[in-house]
Amino acid sequence: MQVFAAALGKYTPRVETIAHTGQLVGAIEAGGTKFVCAVGRGPGTDMLARAQFPTGDDPARLLAEVVEWLAAQEREHGQLAALGVASFGPVDLDRSSRTYGFITTTPKRGWRGTDVLGPLRRAFPGRPFGFDTDVNGAALGEGRWGAARGLEDFVYVTVGTGIGGGGVIRGRPMHGLVHPEMGHFPMPVLDGDRFAGSCAIHGRCWEGLCAGPAIEARTGKPASELAADDPAWDLTARYMAYAFATLTYVLSPKRIVFGGSVRKAGRFGEAAFFERTRAALLEVLAGYIDSPALTPGGVRDFVVPPALGDDAGVCGAMALAHDSLDAAAAHGGR
Amino acid sequence: MQVFAAALGKYTPRVETIAHTGQLVGAIEAGGTKFVCAVGRGPGTDMLARAQFPTGDDPARLLAEVVEWLAAQEREHGQLAALGVASFGPVDLDRSSRTYGFITTTPKRGWRGTDVLGPLRRAFPGRPFGFDTDVNGAALGEGRWGAARGLEDFVYVTVGTGIGGGGVIRGRPMHGLVHPEMGHFPMPVLDGDRFAGSCAIHGRCWEGLCAGPAIEARTGKPASELAADDPAWDLTARYMAYAFATLTYVLSPKRIVFGGSVRKAGRFGEAAFFERTRAALLEVLAGYIDSPALTPGGVRDFVVPPALGDDAGVCGAMALAHDSLDAAAAHGGR
Repeated sequence: MQVFAAALGKYTPRVETIAHTGQLVGAIEAGGTKFVCAVGRGPGTDMLARAQFPTGDDPARLLAEVVEWLAAQEREHGQLAALGVASFGPVDLDRSSRTYGFITTTPKRGWRGTDVLGPLRRAFPGRPFGFDTDVNGAALGEGRWGAARGLEDFVYVTVGTGIGGGGVIRGRPMHGLVHPEMGHFPMPVLDGDRFAGSCAIHGRCWEGLCAGPAIEARTGKPASELAADDPAWDLTARYMAYAFATLTYVLSPKRIVFGGSVRKAGRFGEAAFFERTRAALLEVLAGYIDSPALTPGGVRDFVVPPALGDDAGVCGAMALAHDSLDAAAAHGGR
Repeated sequence: MQVFAAALGKYTPRVETIAHTGQLVGAIEAGGTKFVCAVGRGPGTDMLARAQFPTGDDPARLLAEVVEWLAAQEREHGQLAALGVASFGPVDLDRSSRTYGFITTTPKRGWRGTDVLGPLRRAFPGRPFGFDTDVNGAALGEGRWGAARGLEDFVYVTVGTGIGGGGVIRGRPMHGLVHPEMGHFPMPVLDGDRFAGSCAIHGRCWEGLCAGPAIEARTGKPASELAADDPAWDLTARYMAYAFATLTYVLSPKRIVFGGSVRKAGRFGEAAFFERTRAALLEVLAGYIDSPALTPGGVRDFVVPPALGDDAGVCGAMALAHDSLDAAAAHGGR
């Protein structure tokens, strides 16, 4: 795959990251619709077992089911060296906080203020745990095994029911004040576009202009039913270009991995939608940043689809588990 | 000072950073208008000598003058342990590149493709050098000695003739593909605002709406001559709020240090302009991010003026010099 070849040319393995890749770990992608759980050493054939559970509105029951499944896998495949959780949010990532590992202010029924990490830790005592946002997890997964392999600075975005982004800087996901919420930055409006945006909070933020519900609100149809020549595709590509320009100017990523369902672009098609978005991005940047990555040839490796497909999230949780082993080793214990 | 007290409460010194602070270093802030040079161990009374030179259009001559001044200081104050350069750009920050330490594609006459670092290194052989963008340098300076002291994740922005931003993540400035160019991301347009923006490349990007020349183009007067009740102040504050919202959503900084001449806001006044900008920021964020920093009380410590004033840049260059000693020590020598 061209993307990998280009990336591997510059790949400097980071010893502390590589050391624990390959150990048997448990992974939980805690999504707003479903929880995907896996046990394994990596993606593909290294994933020994995988299961999914509807998220529902009863966290205690769901977490008990997840624990039971993981414990059964452990009896079958051997002890899990560590576990990783990549969770929908907002979540508390501050290890010194009383609510570290909690989902905090979500509007999702039953989940506000839920301690996700606590019940899992109690069920698997003595094991290190990694915990991060779903998009930071997916970014790490794509960085370790997917479309950003070998890069230290990149961003993963998912555009589906909502929009989220995980930025990786010098090999580590960004946290900061809380954690990024990239779907909600303000956006310019294209000339003549009267659409008010679908974000309940911000109207025409990125999510309000480009997520699946925005396309449906704009056209009256789900994206999957739009004609290939519906003008909404071009509009959406142009708005995506504005958003990617913002990420490029603010983060200076070496690559943007563009995941989520909207990128598949129904009848218009994924390849055509990526081409349109890349061309519009170059137009918006207007040559301001002088880099081979931002030329008509280079941009194909700058904006790329994810390589792990539907497994990006759960692979990300595996990467978080592996990283927690690295961190535990660095601190001379677990 | 309240800002410092709040920050120090959470301050965990990073040993590798602290180790070399206090050594005698040389610092060069290479600006588009002037070069500010200093020799010292830190800001204030720790700065033993300071001089400035107009940038002009003859890099070779200017760099020779800078070398001569630094060498004279060295004879007077003792050997410089390291040197730091914080330069206007775009610059090449890739240490493996043939043009590392060069200013690359600037439109500034005489400076395109100039090797800034080379002549300095040859003049001070055997000494480690730090090199980064002017805004990354200023950010490090504010982080070490100024308004972001004790924070690992923050952003410094300067709004003057142009707009630039330096993001610090986990204590280190962002580089990535090239380096951030935060002044140029696309912006929404406020209802009824017909101003086309002053950026020659992008029109209504952040710089095209909020930098000094934008205010002058909008009103026909330099910012310093605007009446205190000129509507341009409110407009500018509201656009600044959009830009800070974007930085908040994308970077999740713990603080935004807002420097440069525009923040002083002429007759409207710095305090009033900050209050207006902070209030507008909370309005744009609309409560989406749940953090004490983003409440009417907390935002005063979230958007703050710089503490190093006109010395932020040259202090940043000192910080780069100190960091280069740390890096040299970490690699077991220079």
